[in-house]
Amino acid sequence: MSGLICFLSDFGLHDGYVGVVKGVILSIDPVARIVDLSHAVPPQDVRSGAFLLMASVPYFPRGTVYLAVVDPGVGGQRRAIAIETGGYRFVGPDNGLFGWALLRLVRGAELALEPDGDRLRLGEGASAVSLSRPRFWRPEVSATFHGRDVFGPVAAHLSRGVALDELGERIEAIRTLPFPRPVEVEGQTKGEILYVDRFGNLITNLEGSALPPDATIRIGDRAIAGLSPHFQQDVDLIALIGSSGLLEIAVPSGSAAARLGVAVGAIVSVSPAPSGPGPLSLEAIG
Amino acid sequence: MSGLICFLSDFGLHDGYVGVVKGVILSIDPVARIVDLSHAVPPQDVRSGAFLLMASVPYFPRGTVYLAVVDPGVGGQRRAIAIETGGYRFVGPDNGLFGWALLRLVRGAELALEPDGDRLRLGEGASAVSLSRPRFWRPEVSATFHGRDVFGPVAAHLSRGVALDELGERIEAIRTLPFPRPVEVEGQTKGEILYVDRFGNLITNLEGSALPPDATIRIGDRAIAGLSPHFQQDVDLIALIGSSGLLEIAVPSGSAAARLGVAVGAIVSVSPAPSGPGPLSLEAIG
Amino acid sequence: MSGLICFLSDFGLHDGYVGVVKGVILSIDPVARIVDLSHAVPPQDVRSGAFLLMASVPYFPRGTVYLAVVDPGVGGQRRAIAIETGGYRFVGPDNGLFGWALLRLVRGAELALEPDGDRLRLGEGASAVSLSRPRFWRPEVSATFHGRDVFGPVAAHLSRGVALDELGERIEAIRTLPFPRPVEVEGQTKGEILYVDRFGNLITNLEGSALPPDATIRIGDRAIAGLSPHFQQDVDLIALIGSSGLLEIAVPSGSAAARLGVAVGAIVSVSPAPSGPGPLSLEAIG
Repeated sequence: MSGLICFLSDFGLHDGYVGVVKGVILSIDPVARIVDLSHAVPPQDVRSGAFLLMASVPYFPRGTVYLAVVDPGVGGQRRAIAIETGGYRFVGPDNGLFGWALLRLVRGAELALEPDGDRLRLGEGASAVSLSRPRFWRPEVSATFHGRDVFGPVAAHLSRGVALDELGERIEAIRTLPFPRPVEVEGQTKGEILYVDRFGNLITNLEGSALPPDATIRIGDRAIAGLSPHFQQDVDLIALIGSSGLLEIAVPSGSAAARLGVAVGAIVSVSPAPSGPGPLSLEAIG
Repeated sequence: MSGLICFLSDFGLHDGYVGVVKGVILSIDPVARIVDLSHAVPPQDVRSGAFLLMASVPYFPRGTVYLAVVDPGVGGQRRAIAIETGGYRFVGPDNGLFGWALLRLVRGAELALEPDGDRLRLGEGASAVSLSRPRFWRPEVSATFHGRDVFGPVAAHLSRGVALDELGERIEAIRTLPFPRPVEVEGQTKGEILYVDRFGNLITNLEGSALPPDATIRIGDRAIAGLSPHFQQDVDLIALIGSSGLLEIAVPSGSAAARLGVAVGAIVSVSPAPSGPGPLSLEAIG
Repeated sequence: MSGLICFLSDFGLHDGYVGVVKGVILSIDPVARIVDLSHAVPPQDVRSGAFLLMASVPYFPRGTVYLAVVDPGVGGQRRAIAIETGGYRFVGPDNGLFGWALLRLVRGAELALEPDGDRLRLGEGASAVSLSRPRFWRPEVSATFHGRDVFGPVAAHLSRGVALDELGERIEAIRTLPFPRPVEVEGQTKGEILYVDRFGNLITNLEGSALPPDATIRIGDRAIAGLSPHFQQDVDLIALIGSSGLLEIAVPSGSAAARLGVAVGAIVSVSPAPSGPGPLSLEAIG
């Protein structure tokens, strides 16, 4: 247990909502340390929240409690949940926010996607509960701010050492967003843009380690020849393996999103170098 | 004493001003924990600062020191003050920033507004001092950055355990902004927009607990029939009791401020349901 | 040693990069306290980063580790360095980011600019190393995120008490940006705008303590007569000694940058009051 709470939300930093949640947490666990992951998730954009959790989770110490609130269904029928796996805990709405982070953490070994792809069945080594015990919440729960009234307090209790099973009843599966897997089509790998960062870098769903360095990357009507080792390139558009291990498309000292006019979901395809491996290829043909 | 400092300002997060104040605080009290409430108060907008303090104060633990710096009069004649009530301390300029939070904390019981409405007389259980002892400040005080040179150091000394009365001479009253109380006019309650949050939700001065659920809410040329239980509604404009307990007007997944073209100060009126309570009403007429 | 890490970057607060670096730091030093200086440095703007470090450094306690990452050359040939002087440590890329802060800290006494002005030779009381020992880094170092993989971990090890010389080989000089010194031309002092803050205040390279209070300050086609004591002035444009001790040009309750249409690098000149010091001057002439 680290006493560390990693906090993600779409609350923004303008209106004091984030500070109020921290006040509530520190009222319950005065020694908790709270690290902000981001509070600039676009309002109600569960997909961006799921990406940021997935991208960050290997870098926080075991014992960390993830408090994540991107919650378009607040006050409605969606469940409130807490999850534990691999020494990490997660607290938030059951709307798909945590699926990608869990899949990355356990590398698919102990979790299973259900056939329809939007439910994640928890196997050995992972457990989840539906938050149903009001004694771990604020005495009055508003209809619109469960970050303050339910999730923040539960995260603080977990940080203090309360066990997951005290918080509610076990559940077998949680919701996830379908993760867009790359597909192979006629010798090409087709992926898509998962996330656009503040610099305008386009982060794809294509694992960098699987790509040949001399591949041709296509997006829109542009083709990029080969992977660059870093951002310092004297060309207007590059492809490189980004810090998350995924293929990124970038404009050195500029915004690829603006230059190309693309957004999340745009198709990116990768094919072997046009000339192939040369002599070796001819031999193979022979 | 919690060693917790809750920090509000209009400094923004761009220029390092907030970080510098924290460096000064931690030079004086190395174990202080500092929570940011907001640093995005519009420059010199004391009213927005007063609202955010009022909205947050019940959620921080007793012992918290509020450091609040929205200070258009810095370097001029306005006093620098510290206040203590209910286990909370407040440090900042005497320009009205703290009045609404104090009124909420003590529920009017021990404080009194003076006749002209912009002075708050401190009664039993509340005390304030004018900051006049330079030994609790930085050795050199600039004309433009009292957050760094006066208020931050004083907050750190309070956090370390220095008593209020060591900081300066007692004062009897502090400045407040007049709180816009709703008024009753011909069977309607007329209030106004107090604050617009980042989502464009319009937060009014009307206590939610006093409103009949089937009331008609009017703003501009729009009428909203009844209160919604939460944001998940398939209509373009809703009224609901927000997380601060006040009536809010919202556009689900959108901005009510943009949709209606209104801002702080716009009038909101509430009247009983148009058809009245039905049979009972007829009986009453009979 | 304070266990305090002051963190500056151009990462922004949107994408979780700052949070991830903190997760890495707290994995290595679980009791480190991290204060954000700014993460809104314009992307790759080393000069703004250098200014903010210079402006903040006297306000953090000795023992502070400065982690600063504005790193257009990441993945290329620039060195990664750590510096120690006056009880402070600095970690980041060797691209000029730290030069102005060091010059301010040691007041020129023990450091020397090399003739071409972009190298700072470290003298007695200051030392620096080139980061060359991967055991203080993350096991896998990406090409694009040394804040997470190199600089953050090294800052955490310094915070834990690792000595500078364990991190790599001593180096004799680091890069700096040439600091624009004011020049004297025909009785005028000519300086320039160093930084524009979020309020639109124009911060110059002119030391306030050297200026006569009745000086005339010129920028563009505007002339300002004399220094104002603070921001509360009923005129449209003022000059004053700002919180960093430097001459600033400001519009009370407005933006001088927008009003004048100027940016970093614009020339500001100061001349004695047009009428001279009056009677005393006449006597002197007599």
